Amino acid sequence: MSVERFLNKNLAEMVPRRTSRGYVIPPGSIVLYGGDPRDVNQPKFIADAVYKAMLEGYTHYEMAGVPEFKRAIAEYYSKFGATVEDPVKQVIINSGGSTGIFQAFAATINPGDEVILFDPTYSAYPNVIQYFGGKVVKSLMYDDDGGLPRPDIEALKAAITDRTKALLVCNPDNPTGCVFTEGELRAIADLAVEHDFIVVSDEIYQEFIWNDKPHFPIISLPDMADRTIVIMSFSKTYVWTGCRVGCIISGPNLTPYINRVPLSLGLVSGAFQRAGIVALKEGEEFVEYLRNRYRDAVEYCSKRLDEMPSISCYMPEATFYLWPDISATGLGEVDFCSKLMEAENVMVRPGDGYGVKGKGHVRIALVTPMDALVEAMDKIERFVKKL
Amino acid sequence: MSVERFLNKNLAEMVPRRTSRGYVIPPGSIVLYGGDPRDVNQPKFIADAVYKAMLEGYTHYEMAGVPEFKRAIAEYYSKFGATVEDPVKQVIINSGGSTGIFQAFAATINPGDEVILFDPTYSAYPNVIQYFGGKVVKSLMYDDDGGLPRPDIEALKAAITDRTKALLVCNPDNPTGCVFTEGELRAIADLAVEHDFIVVSDEIYQEFIWNDKPHFPIISLPDMADRTIVIMSFSKTYVWTGCRVGCIISGPNLTPYINRVPLSLGLVSGAFQRAGIVALKEGEEFVEYLRNRYRDAVEYCSKRLDEMPSISCYMPEATFYLWPDISATGLGEVDFCSKLMEAENVMVRPGDGYGVKGKGHVRIALVTPMDALVEAMDKIERFVKKL
Repeated sequence: MSVERFLNKNLAEMVPRRTSRGYVIPPGSIVLYGGDPRDVNQPKFIADAVYKAMLEGYTHYEMAGVPEFKRAIAEYYSKFGATVEDPVKQVIINSGGSTGIFQAFAATINPGDEVILFDPTYSAYPNVIQYFGGKVVKSLMYDDDGGLPRPDIEALKAAITDRTKALLVCNPDNPTGCVFTEGELRAIADLAVEHDFIVVSDEIYQEFIWNDKPHFPIISLPDMADRTIVIMSFSKTYVWTGCRVGCIISGPNLTPYINRVPLSLGLVSGAFQRAGIVALKEGEEFVEYLRNRYRDAVEYCSKRLDEMPSISCYMPEATFYLWPDISATGLGEVDFCSKLMEAENVMVRPGDGYGVKGKGHVRIALVTPMDALVEAMDKIERFVKKL
Repeated sequence: MSVERFLNKNLAEMVPRRTSRGYVIPPGSIVLYGGDPRDVNQPKFIADAVYKAMLEGYTHYEMAGVPEFKRAIAEYYSKFGATVEDPVKQVIINSGGSTGIFQAFAATINPGDEVILFDPTYSAYPNVIQYFGGKVVKSLMYDDDGGLPRPDIEALKAAITDRTKALLVCNPDNPTGCVFTEGELRAIADLAVEHDFIVVSDEIYQEFIWNDKPHFPIISLPDMADRTIVIMSFSKTYVWTGCRVGCIISGPNLTPYINRVPLSLGLVSGAFQRAGIVALKEGEEFVEYLRNRYRDAVEYCSKRLDEMPSISCYMPEATFYLWPDISATGLGEVDFCSKLMEAENVMVRPGDGYGVKGKGHVRIALVTPMDALVEAMDKIERFVKKL
């Protein structure tokens, strides 16, 4: 039976984004596609904390989030220099980064509003904005001398109109690995105040920064608290991808409205929330282990790729993604990925899903053990040498 | 800082529904407000199953839901006589009933669409519809000879217009405890097919039925599969309120679109999904315990209330809610609740939040141990005798 007449029209028109779901992945393939390290599990001390909390009876509705968890998040976030005055009010517990993005735009977008995204950008953002009837406006990043894309403040100014409702900043950035500098964030905040728009600041990679620039929270700048919606997630930090815990941090006047989005998003497992407190208090050693592993992976693989013929790859400032330029191979990014998969069973992601600037690029997620990464680099090298 | 200009306009206009959150509840109060039995925890065999799954590494993304869980749900649902042909496609795992309702309307409502709700109705539905720009149209239930509200098919016919997109059926019903008969559901399905609208069928109380009418799934009727969105939840069945697992069952042509709602709703903890399989396979003894307990509570309390001066209360056909008529006390439903709280520290919920037919009614949730219920009934009796 045809069902189109029953549908929300934005949903019906939506082009589902490309995921690895539709692909047949032969056994023995090396999958460098999504950002979830399959060989590392959520650490046992967190599983223990979940189990303990469940046995203690924390299995009931937690309508407004666990206050102690909210305070622990605010304390954690203060290490970046941001003060959350009223954590119980300003922290909204939700079920992860994707939920946070949805919740942020659900609370703020009206049909016809413009939302500026940098380009390239994480492929899951545009659909959310389009679902709510918003119009995606792209602001191209520029490549610095090393080839690393950075926000272009002049291009951003040019993208702002009277209809600009929000700007999405992914910092540290997926897929580019760019860490926004304090100067860039101050310039963005000035524009937000001047033109009166909000900033959705997706900061889920803030623990994985490789240069000496500290993570700088834009919400801490003057007049930005009620103009910033910070997206945080436990997924990447604690390999907690499958347990769905995250939060929004925002200003005290904005959060009561975000809480109105009638999804009962606050209803995150109380046991997970208690385990989140434990993770924040006792998780640093595990995070340090991940950080070292990812840093080794990006240093090794970016160097290997950059040395290959027809590929140039910078060392990213942050994240476990590489964003090599493969245009000199003569293959488009989609062809590059399908032929690489066919020839060597190595799966990487074509850049076209990330925007105009994704042309000639692929995204490589380094969440696989080093021996597999060495093998993958050998295979990619063999592949490009044969072209 | 004022933030109204940043907001989605439907959200800004929304009147947040009344919850127990804002109330100061003195120690020693008996709270018969929400549907979550605080003295019963999720059973240990489920907590064990969650822990086991986490240790086994089921803590990663589960983008599309666990197929084995979907098949177990379909098998469970078949006991009501409904066949789910393709569980992997037709079952969508989500984080509970509230999420399911949101997801159903997110997928189907366009601004201006009309959604029919029976009146009285669960107080959380209207906000979701209004958030998506839908118009709530009420169809008053009629009271049968015993005072139990039932769907009025003639009133429903009169509520249907060219703009009718959906009808929400809560079966078994909250707050009335009405179990829709097969005849009523066939009449509703005929109207849905004739006037080409969909039925959102919230069936989260289907395990708690007190009469001999079996639960009848409207989705099993001819031409209804792609016209019905069944909402199910593990929250009530397994006192799993705080662990957020539920699902949608719908037709094979509709579910791909529901899956497009860009919330990553499929991302429910894999450990919870594995525990859900265990709950469905081994949970019947626990559900039987709950069923006996709730049946005893509704039988005892409905009789006690019905014997009190100025109160009439029928025995509901299902659920652990009572819906007494308190209009003969001379107090409005809001006054009744606040004065009862003041005089006796017993907290029940005024009916006005449930619609026009909530006037003169209160909802009493019987999720407290029997000794507290006896005490609560004594206190309510003393309260009404003093009026």
